[in-house]
Amino acid sequence: MIFLDCDYMQGAHPKILQRLQETNLEATVGYGQDHYCQRAKEAIRKACGREDLAVHFLVGGTQTNATVIDAILARHEGVIAAETGHISVHEAGAIEATGHKILTLPQHNGKLKAEEVEEYINNFYADDTYDHMVAPGLVYISNPTEYGTLYSLDELIDLSTVCEDAGIPLFMDGARLGYGLASPGYDVTLQDIVRLCDVFYIGGTKVGALFGEAVVTRRPEILGQFFPLIKQHGALLAKGRLLGLQFETLFTDNLYFEIAGHAVEQALRIKKAMIKAGYKPVIDSPTNQQFFKLPNKIVDKLGEWASFEYWGPRGEKESVIRMVTSWATDTNEVDILIEHIKTL
Amino acid sequence: MIFLDCDYMQGAHPKILQRLQETNLEATVGYGQDHYCQRAKEAIRKACGREDLAVHFLVGGTQTNATVIDAILARHEGVIAAETGHISVHEAGAIEATGHKILTLPQHNGKLKAEEVEEYINNFYADDTYDHMVAPGLVYISNPTEYGTLYSLDELIDLSTVCEDAGIPLFMDGARLGYGLASPGYDVTLQDIVRLCDVFYIGGTKVGALFGEAVVTRRPEILGQFFPLIKQHGALLAKGRLLGLQFETLFTDNLYFEIAGHAVEQALRIKKAMIKAGYKPVIDSPTNQQFFKLPNKIVDKLGEWASFEYWGPRGEKESVIRMVTSWATDTNEVDILIEHIKTL
Amino acid sequence: MIFLDCDYMQGAHPKILQRLQETNLEATVGYGQDHYCQRAKEAIRKACGREDLAVHFLVGGTQTNATVIDAILARHEGVIAAETGHISVHEAGAIEATGHKILTLPQHNGKLKAEEVEEYINNFYADDTYDHMVAPGLVYISNPTEYGTLYSLDELIDLSTVCEDAGIPLFMDGARLGYGLASPGYDVTLQDIVRLCDVFYIGGTKVGALFGEAVVTRRPEILGQFFPLIKQHGALLAKGRLLGLQFETLFTDNLYFEIAGHAVEQALRIKKAMIKAGYKPVIDSPTNQQFFKLPNKIVDKLGEWASFEYWGPRGEKESVIRMVTSWATDTNEVDILIEHIKTL
Amino acid sequence: MIFLDCDYMQGAHPKILQRLQETNLEATVGYGQDHYCQRAKEAIRKACGREDLAVHFLVGGTQTNATVIDAILARHEGVIAAETGHISVHEAGAIEATGHKILTLPQHNGKLKAEEVEEYINNFYADDTYDHMVAPGLVYISNPTEYGTLYSLDELIDLSTVCEDAGIPLFMDGARLGYGLASPGYDVTLQDIVRLCDVFYIGGTKVGALFGEAVVTRRPEILGQFFPLIKQHGALLAKGRLLGLQFETLFTDNLYFEIAGHAVEQALRIKKAMIKAGYKPVIDSPTNQQFFKLPNKIVDKLGEWASFEYWGPRGEKESVIRMVTSWATDTNEVDILIEHIKTL
Repeated sequence: MIFLDCDYMQGAHPKILQRLQETNLEATVGYGQDHYCQRAKEAIRKACGREDLAVHFLVGGTQTNATVIDAILARHEGVIAAETGHISVHEAGAIEATGHKILTLPQHNGKLKAEEVEEYINNFYADDTYDHMVAPGLVYISNPTEYGTLYSLDELIDLSTVCEDAGIPLFMDGARLGYGLASPGYDVTLQDIVRLCDVFYIGGTKVGALFGEAVVTRRPEILGQFFPLIKQHGALLAKGRLLGLQFETLFTDNLYFEIAGHAVEQALRIKKAMIKAGYKPVIDSPTNQQFFKLPNKIVDKLGEWASFEYWGPRGEKESVIRMVTSWATDTNEVDILIEHIKTL
Repeated sequence: MIFLDCDYMQGAHPKILQRLQETNLEATVGYGQDHYCQRAKEAIRKACGREDLAVHFLVGGTQTNATVIDAILARHEGVIAAETGHISVHEAGAIEATGHKILTLPQHNGKLKAEEVEEYINNFYADDTYDHMVAPGLVYISNPTEYGTLYSLDELIDLSTVCEDAGIPLFMDGARLGYGLASPGYDVTLQDIVRLCDVFYIGGTKVGALFGEAVVTRRPEILGQFFPLIKQHGALLAKGRLLGLQFETLFTDNLYFEIAGHAVEQALRIKKAMIKAGYKPVIDSPTNQQFFKLPNKIVDKLGEWASFEYWGPRGEKESVIRMVTSWATDTNEVDILIEHIKTL
Repeated sequence: MIFLDCDYMQGAHPKILQRLQETNLEATVGYGQDHYCQRAKEAIRKACGREDLAVHFLVGGTQTNATVIDAILARHEGVIAAETGHISVHEAGAIEATGHKILTLPQHNGKLKAEEVEEYINNFYADDTYDHMVAPGLVYISNPTEYGTLYSLDELIDLSTVCEDAGIPLFMDGARLGYGLASPGYDVTLQDIVRLCDVFYIGGTKVGALFGEAVVTRRPEILGQFFPLIKQHGALLAKGRLLGLQFETLFTDNLYFEIAGHAVEQALRIKKAMIKAGYKPVIDSPTNQQFFKLPNKIVDKLGEWASFEYWGPRGEKESVIRMVTSWATDTNEVDILIEHIKTL
Repeated sequence: MIFLDCDYMQGAHPKILQRLQETNLEATVGYGQDHYCQRAKEAIRKACGREDLAVHFLVGGTQTNATVIDAILARHEGVIAAETGHISVHEAGAIEATGHKILTLPQHNGKLKAEEVEEYINNFYADDTYDHMVAPGLVYISNPTEYGTLYSLDELIDLSTVCEDAGIPLFMDGARLGYGLASPGYDVTLQDIVRLCDVFYIGGTKVGALFGEAVVTRRPEILGQFFPLIKQHGALLAKGRLLGLQFETLFTDNLYFEIAGHAVEQALRIKKAMIKAGYKPVIDSPTNQQFFKLPNKIVDKLGEWASFEYWGPRGEKESVIRMVTSWATDTNEVDILIEHIKTL
């Protein structure tokens, strides 16, 4: 049985555990003021190709989204997001709990379209009564999206241009960023993201760490006094060095990209095998999440060999499932699964 | 140099790291639905002497305080706390950010007095205009307090009685609970706390874990739908098993109490040495935090051998310092420090 | 020039001003504890046909929506509303500012469909991950809607049944309730609304009062401690009697229904004239708001005789406009407008 | 029987009712965009001696405090106030409901001391852990205070200097401002307040209007996008002109100051009579609120002739009461009361 339910089923990459072990009894100051955090920040800045970036470490994705969005928005502003955006659907109202509306736009394979964002902003200010409405103050995208898809460089440039023209920051939720950047042929680099997004985060929880998200921005001023806000949101880890240690490890010797590449490779092998067996993916995802609409019988059969997420019925005879690989996915187990798939 | 700045300077007890190592590549479901969390809950229920307790795991203290308080209070209610309570001072407004006022009462060695709580509640309802005021809806205490002091059994019974009579739950912040329960001669047990507090939490971050706080209640109904609220507060760890593994380890073979006992023992040795050297503690703390008012010269001298927290000047010639031990404090290092103290 | 921009362009019905004048120098207690408020509550209870109703007076619609919704919802809950609902669009995020998500469903002539509400609730609880999502905790409808349409008795019964089955209260925003109840042939009475909605309010601001909304519920327990919440929301009028005086006047001698009936009559006369002149309404509204899609030339022409609200272009040659009558609309001015319309 | 319970027991000054009557059927646009509001703003600017002031009209004091404070503070900031400040005590947690802590300082006859504010701010930034605490972002004072006392010009200058040096705005709650400015010998003018406070409001509710508070600032930028925030707070009156009409009337021919002067004169007559009768005020208030500690027998006796507010017992034999005059207080009724007082 191979486990493909989600990308946070195992602990951490062994190198991370090893570092935790090695440094365990060292005494450091708390709250991220330690030298491991400093070194992790340097490593991330280096990978991003800029020395002047602000980097902050938080524990999980929902708290990172809520803290960043709350930091940037004025009280009367909301955040534009795709209707399928994680903040719109699966964060139990964490954004609204900070007092802000999510202004949802239609999704296209999980993505926002720049022209629709532009149209929304234009229509908003064309409406005489806009002062009675929630003003768009931020654009949120996830990349890879909840559907495993990626914004192309052109799409990011377009979104970035629309945002800049409107004076509205662009924020990328990179909970699975590694799995995007490691996707073969993806034309966007970490440096592009630094340049095109006002703020983004590099996900650790789903890409090799026990937990942790690294917020990066070339415009620290838009986050205001971010440290006390992290604290206020309950997102400040007492033993902050645990975050530093993990991100330093991930951004040493290219580990982050390497392990993400492994996950994507395995996902694409499974995808290819499924296609060969006659089953087309519902969405053409180039990353570690793969979605298939399958006859229920096939779902059951597949379920004998693999554990995955059931995304609900499509009519009476078919269902959609999601298979997710991660840094921890075992190549041999994938080999075996592929052999099984051939028999479908 | 011995580090006595705070109780979260090191990683985790080695047994915890070992368990993380052993289970690292096992695949489990997320968000605390795994078997380690189940086992940890069982272990905690056993230590508490009751099978019917609800147990929830969160990551850190501030988020636990905010989530619990937000869960219990109605919109028009506030929480009573000592003016020195952690929520009143050092959580960057996390409680107010959820919309609730902290109703501060004077502290007595960091503690609330039952009769003052009672008087506050009585005065509140005796005021004709109370409907224009924030109603007390919860009483918050920390135990040990921010000053290292402990509520005696009688004090807890009195507080509990006042709360029960008023129909207001009593909530104990146990971020350092182990260091209290392990204090020699302390007349309160974990079972007493279960019985006398409506809800409390057992701190892991400061007592042997990398992070983690275990919320325990015999009255789960007062927390309402707590799971989505944990999520909304950004306090739900994706790899929830990390919390389960840690608490299971801490509550196996009495580890939690043993390592807490070690910390308190070392703190009391230092305290005794200081007293012998002629320096009285500012507060008579029986736990792992020790506070001394010292001539500035002595502070400087002590600072050559130990690192500690500076609590600010008292007049021109004296200052208050805090020395904190933890599960990780090394007995030999304490031996050496004591030798130094003798020379003061 | 006749003014048809909105239904709050004039002051109050002359009888209300007269009552304010007569009672001006009388001294009464504040905050709605006075005898005028008591009498107004009695008058409303009588009109509603039940003596056991709780009645609260607030100043305006947005604050009433926010206060009621905040009172009813648990922290992890949101409110279902049509995408065109006033709370979704034109309240500047007042609901989200209290921490709650608005769960929008498609509108059908401004209305929710009971079966879609039911389906939403069912789908919500059928989703394994619903604990990570905002739970529906209230259903909000406006009646008349923002499009002037009305829920029929059958539609209300269906919605009420869905809500009751789901254990979710039904809340009616009745900012224009009078203009609905006075619509000729409308099969819903105030008594029906009391019975079918868990809580609703009777709009004064748009129906004859200077300001004021009367919240009515047969289930006061769902509002919790509502008085301090009104205060907390800044919605408690110091000179509360002004609200009592106005509602007492409106609910004496049937005034509320009479003046609402006048407004609807004038609106339907204009509608009829427009149809006769060859212009069909965009929405078939039986109340005081009328919507027409007109060639831009006709909009300009009409604009010479009447002031109305421009709802934006529809293509290059047409636009939608809204004409609104009120208790204050002058019959003679409508006569003149109709003569003009004949010439279109 | 004379009513001295509070300053909002009657309706409005007759000139205001007359203006409402005269303009009742005129059609104007809503939400304060009408010409009466424009004229009222001009009149207020004129009285303030500056043409460049931003003026906003809200309905009541609590909502004005909450909206202004929420507008100015960053998410991690709180507002400094005296422990007796209205926002600290009698607004049902309206400030905390917007997510902000009130940082209370000791009161001195209801007032903050500039040096204590300065010390608080200095101590805050001297604390190494200030990033874990709520930063002071605004100073709130009420003038007259809840005890009827007034800040002298020197006191205001000192506070203003401390605030300016710290880069923290100074906000004056002027719910009773008229009764201060009209106090004989008061050395502060409206122009001084404009100059020394960053933002303040002129109370209408308690000084002649049915309701209404006029927010004034020479620094509109600190309020951000204030209009949508007013709407979000439920503080935007649909028929905004009612506010304009009232403030225009109050600021025409000096009416505001004249009627406030009348109230203060009557209050001081009562004070004098009480002193003559042998009863010293608890606080030496030069405004329309007068506080006396009286033997309970005297309280009962006085209660036969006047209605007033009971502030609770002081020991077993005495109590404190508050007598409040207003623009509506009748001179003859005061004459009669004074005759009675002579017999005490």
